[in-house]
Amino acid sequence: MPGNAFGQAFRFETWGESHGAAIGCVVDGVPPLIPLAEPDLQVWLDKRRPGQSRFTTQRREPDQVRILSGVFEGRTTGTPIALMIENQDQRSKDYGEIAGKFRPGHADYSYWKKYGIRDYRGGGRSSARETAMRVAAGGVARKVLDAVLGPGAVTIRGALVQIGRHRVSRDNWDWAAVEDNPFFCPDRQAAQSWEGVLDATRKAGSSLGAVVEVVAEGVPPGLGEPIYDKLDADLAKAMMSINAVKAVEIGAGFAAAELSGEENADEMRMVDGKVAFLSNQAGGVLGGISSGQDIVVRFAVKPTSSILMPRRTIDLEGNETEIVTKGRHDPCVGIRAVPVGEAMMALVLADHLLRQRAQTGRV
Amino acid sequence: MPGNAFGQAFRFETWGESHGAAIGCVVDGVPPLIPLAEPDLQVWLDKRRPGQSRFTTQRREPDQVRILSGVFEGRTTGTPIALMIENQDQRSKDYGEIAGKFRPGHADYSYWKKYGIRDYRGGGRSSARETAMRVAAGGVARKVLDAVLGPGAVTIRGALVQIGRHRVSRDNWDWAAVEDNPFFCPDRQAAQSWEGVLDATRKAGSSLGAVVEVVAEGVPPGLGEPIYDKLDADLAKAMMSINAVKAVEIGAGFAAAELSGEENADEMRMVDGKVAFLSNQAGGVLGGISSGQDIVVRFAVKPTSSILMPRRTIDLEGNETEIVTKGRHDPCVGIRAVPVGEAMMALVLADHLLRQRAQTGRV
Amino acid sequence: MPGNAFGQAFRFETWGESHGAAIGCVVDGVPPLIPLAEPDLQVWLDKRRPGQSRFTTQRREPDQVRILSGVFEGRTTGTPIALMIENQDQRSKDYGEIAGKFRPGHADYSYWKKYGIRDYRGGGRSSARETAMRVAAGGVARKVLDAVLGPGAVTIRGALVQIGRHRVSRDNWDWAAVEDNPFFCPDRQAAQSWEGVLDATRKAGSSLGAVVEVVAEGVPPGLGEPIYDKLDADLAKAMMSINAVKAVEIGAGFAAAELSGEENADEMRMVDGKVAFLSNQAGGVLGGISSGQDIVVRFAVKPTSSILMPRRTIDLEGNETEIVTKGRHDPCVGIRAVPVGEAMMALVLADHLLRQRAQTGRV
Amino acid sequence: MPGNAFGQAFRFETWGESHGAAIGCVVDGVPPLIPLAEPDLQVWLDKRRPGQSRFTTQRREPDQVRILSGVFEGRTTGTPIALMIENQDQRSKDYGEIAGKFRPGHADYSYWKKYGIRDYRGGGRSSARETAMRVAAGGVARKVLDAVLGPGAVTIRGALVQIGRHRVSRDNWDWAAVEDNPFFCPDRQAAQSWEGVLDATRKAGSSLGAVVEVVAEGVPPGLGEPIYDKLDADLAKAMMSINAVKAVEIGAGFAAAELSGEENADEMRMVDGKVAFLSNQAGGVLGGISSGQDIVVRFAVKPTSSILMPRRTIDLEGNETEIVTKGRHDPCVGIRAVPVGEAMMALVLADHLLRQRAQTGRV
Repeated sequence: MPGNAFGQAFRFETWGESHGAAIGCVVDGVPPLIPLAEPDLQVWLDKRRPGQSRFTTQRREPDQVRILSGVFEGRTTGTPIALMIENQDQRSKDYGEIAGKFRPGHADYSYWKKYGIRDYRGGGRSSARETAMRVAAGGVARKVLDAVLGPGAVTIRGALVQIGRHRVSRDNWDWAAVEDNPFFCPDRQAAQSWEGVLDATRKAGSSLGAVVEVVAEGVPPGLGEPIYDKLDADLAKAMMSINAVKAVEIGAGFAAAELSGEENADEMRMVDGKVAFLSNQAGGVLGGISSGQDIVVRFAVKPTSSILMPRRTIDLEGNETEIVTKGRHDPCVGIRAVPVGEAMMALVLADHLLRQRAQTGRV
Repeated sequence: MPGNAFGQAFRFETWGESHGAAIGCVVDGVPPLIPLAEPDLQVWLDKRRPGQSRFTTQRREPDQVRILSGVFEGRTTGTPIALMIENQDQRSKDYGEIAGKFRPGHADYSYWKKYGIRDYRGGGRSSARETAMRVAAGGVARKVLDAVLGPGAVTIRGALVQIGRHRVSRDNWDWAAVEDNPFFCPDRQAAQSWEGVLDATRKAGSSLGAVVEVVAEGVPPGLGEPIYDKLDADLAKAMMSINAVKAVEIGAGFAAAELSGEENADEMRMVDGKVAFLSNQAGGVLGGISSGQDIVVRFAVKPTSSILMPRRTIDLEGNETEIVTKGRHDPCVGIRAVPVGEAMMALVLADHLLRQRAQTGRV
Repeated sequence: MPGNAFGQAFRFETWGESHGAAIGCVVDGVPPLIPLAEPDLQVWLDKRRPGQSRFTTQRREPDQVRILSGVFEGRTTGTPIALMIENQDQRSKDYGEIAGKFRPGHADYSYWKKYGIRDYRGGGRSSARETAMRVAAGGVARKVLDAVLGPGAVTIRGALVQIGRHRVSRDNWDWAAVEDNPFFCPDRQAAQSWEGVLDATRKAGSSLGAVVEVVAEGVPPGLGEPIYDKLDADLAKAMMSINAVKAVEIGAGFAAAELSGEENADEMRMVDGKVAFLSNQAGGVLGGISSGQDIVVRFAVKPTSSILMPRRTIDLEGNETEIVTKGRHDPCVGIRAVPVGEAMMALVLADHLLRQRAQTGRV
Repeated sequence: MPGNAFGQAFRFETWGESHGAAIGCVVDGVPPLIPLAEPDLQVWLDKRRPGQSRFTTQRREPDQVRILSGVFEGRTTGTPIALMIENQDQRSKDYGEIAGKFRPGHADYSYWKKYGIRDYRGGGRSSARETAMRVAAGGVARKVLDAVLGPGAVTIRGALVQIGRHRVSRDNWDWAAVEDNPFFCPDRQAAQSWEGVLDATRKAGSSLGAVVEVVAEGVPPGLGEPIYDKLDADLAKAMMSINAVKAVEIGAGFAAAELSGEENADEMRMVDGKVAFLSNQAGGVLGGISSGQDIVVRFAVKPTSSILMPRRTIDLEGNETEIVTKGRHDPCVGIRAVPVGEAMMALVLADHLLRQRAQTGRV
């Protein structure tokens, strides 16, 4: 009932604070006999790791993940897989001032009201540092998808499609571009112009919001558990649980509200002897169950709350004051949310794959 | 692990198909000694009931709910509360044609691929008829909020804020207007113009999407379980689990992507000795925990998939064909989604209230 | 988190009070395409039904179960199966006196202290009447075992092996005898002598305890989830959750405490090319996982607490008083616990079968 | 759905293998503001630690527990508490022979059939080494009981009451004696005679079973969730989940089968203005809910399966062979099960305490 775990058949639970000794997670329900080693997870962590460009926080964490259990002679045993990353570059002194004040936009006030105590160092449990373990667990989930559905059967890719008011052009979309720029941007032209935007934002001590899109190709039909654990409902929960996310949509999303019934219906035909949909307004989910089309999810990330501009706030004693959040922060946390969104997609799919297998005996 | 239940400390599980003998639910975890009778639930069901205007389905269901257990001499006993509504106006004959074809936009194809069998009558389990039980369970949840926090301490209200491309004006917002028009529209002027829009849509055999906004006032700070059962994550899941919903946002939502950090920060002051926020971009949730501000959620409902315009599809044998979905359908299912959205808000809040009580001993 | 459900992949939740309008349950996670009709469940309910001999309560309940959802054209659809039995012979007047006094051995006092309210009619929620729904759900579980493992692959049988101080002789064990006497006793000779014992007990207004043994043959190896959801741990919970049960043991059980390591070890050989154990002290479970041997569980049922002999007690106001529990009661509730124990075995096995399938993809 | 966690409101999940890098657990749902430091847990681990007398395994593990998260400035924060013990004295070489053979009485065969792979070193995940984390988590649970109910309000104590055929005398029972002998035996006289028994057993390369009794005093009435999460059902599951346990009983337990209804009824009187029961056949649980009496649980532990006497078995290829289990083993694992049983009692009570608080708002 406490809220630090996600998933049911494939389940992971994270622990740890931003400036504690370590962060970690336990991944349970992993099928046995899957080849797994630390580099399989490290590759995804490296993608999320801070300090890789001037557009993300300069905090330097090697984020070396260790597998502490559940793997024997290179293969999973079906027992819980414990993962751990020791915290290194903690610089707690940077956070002295925030011990007594509530930073607007942060979780300081709400944690204080809930628990009556909070580890204020770097945001403690509410820090986006926790998402490193999602990415590590997501690496395990990808191995499960490969093992059950075949290597590479499912492809999960994310991209940054909007930063502030600047959107990518769908015409310029090139998945290959995503790896070529510091924004995970699929539009090379947009990526170039975003450099100036972000530089200006960073210099101003401000920050910008963003929109991330995650697409899963190759997902078999049948995943999702009606009525309350619909595939899209679980994806919505998964994405909304990421730090700073304020909105989630599937397929046409909010735009569906503006469509007529005939525009929104994804018509069906047979193409080369296979079922084919003529459009994908649904984003690959019908009645909460995957249809075999691409699963398409977008989510909005609010601008980093830690900014150098003074904001009005109060302190623990209820005195009015101001705060400037120093430290090393991402001018746009949406960037590093891309690998986190991919990981959450993998985690949701792995869970529903095993759940589908339980009830129907088929993948 | 099957997906027909929602909530943990306050939990409900629904059952039943559109054209089965009955639909029902079991509500568990309800605190004892709360006064409860059928009219307490019927009032919300009546609000959702079809056939109340020409803008909703003409299916006539009195939707009389019965309490079968868990209440003794007018008060809850702490044991499971079983609710049931017998189905009456089933007219299964209307649905004969759809037995062999997949209706675009409906769950027909995905259920078929998942289970290899489906109750095609009226959509079976995937029918929005299931939402009647959410509304009934939501009525119990409201009583729990009243009992724990004080009568009327929390106010939950929903409104239709967009239909197709037509939005309400925030300047015209009047909660009192919501009860005065068949759209739950808070803008009397907009409501009037929507009549023509909907009439034209209905006559054309088409349908329209919509956006619903649900606001909860008076929610105490501290509700929500980090990290994965954040209050907003559970709200996102709750709303996305409603039939035809394709997007969910909290507070500023997608618009937050366009904001700068300083615009997005909800600054804090003391007003009359109380903590006050100067804006509510967060929608009442910080770090997944309620802050004491209004909880503001919006969700998009796609246009009704059952339309009179022929759509291309295939049949069970893989032959290409067309389908027209006759029967009595809502030209805009978004309208009746308003009381359902309110119910889901109440259900999520009741659950988190009891969970908060478990861990901290405080409401 | 409330406690009215059991199981995870295959899950059921019961509701209802002894003298309410009805009792029922929702069975969820059932694989699709399994033939299911009411007679499949009624056969087990008839076995448990009261009033079939002078040795069980004379309350007359036809206990006709109805399937309200989840079955379409004779087969399961994968959606929740709601079962309901309407209560008929309620005679609430018999229970008038107990409204204000706590019956020793009953749940009256503890429910009162927990909830501050109780439906005292016939024990309300704490009545053994609830077990009728376990038996009905157990019927669904048996169909799942048949569907997944093959018809008749698993045989689940229970027997009464002790009544008061009178035990069956293992030498006389005959499963066929179980159906021939009113005690589900596998020892014809013992059954005959028990008639006199029970008649005397009933006439004295007293009651007797009993021990039930349930055996499952044909269970494949591999079922059970280490560490906390071990097959035997879940069986212990399942049996201990039955009304009036005070002890559970697997295989050698308490006798294992008296054995040496070499006596207790079930040695292994190959017989006809198949793995064979030379004994079954383990009761078919090693490390919490089924070994392929027979699963053997025994549990003790305390004597019926409702007796005609006056017992000292207190009333709601704390006054000392006496109570005689009139009404129609089983002189030995252990008898009717036999089909309930069988049902719990089926329910636990069905759940673990689907869970095993989720993680390993094999039955 | 995987089985490595226990509890709902107060929940812990363990990970790790006997000869892996470390073992650990995550304890979630802990109320905030409770003083907690490593010595609070170490005291219980030291009690369970091997190598303290010649009657337990000579494996030397300092078992130093570390708190990695969830505690800030000496108090719990309400976030997950990660605990870890690094494995040190692993001597994997001792276990070489068992890689290819199934040890009778051990989980080797069933793990192999379930997963198709097993970490055979020291039993891997099935090793009783896992119980160290139960004891550590149990230490946290005790702090929760103290914090919620008042320091020392609940006393949980365990004792060894039988070893092989040798039982303690209830007349000699002295809780103070438990700390004075290497068996946790409450009967000083019996403890003395057990030395000879155990010495002979150890020298013979054999082992003995045992019975453990755990008593919780001061538990308030009202804990336990009917129907399936009854307090006694959860205790049965908790105890049965401990390695080598084959039987569990509450109060009179199996002896209840031999009682008459009038003997079994715990009559009630008022003593000094307080409710008093005149006996405790129920073991403190009525209808699955605590009554305020002492909670009394007993469980049987089978003799250690690792013995020096050759036993017949088969190898992975199905060849018949023999095995002698060398290594350093407990001649009676029941001894070290005493602190484990105490821990499980604490864990179950803490969970039900918080669950009770969720639904009723009272402790």
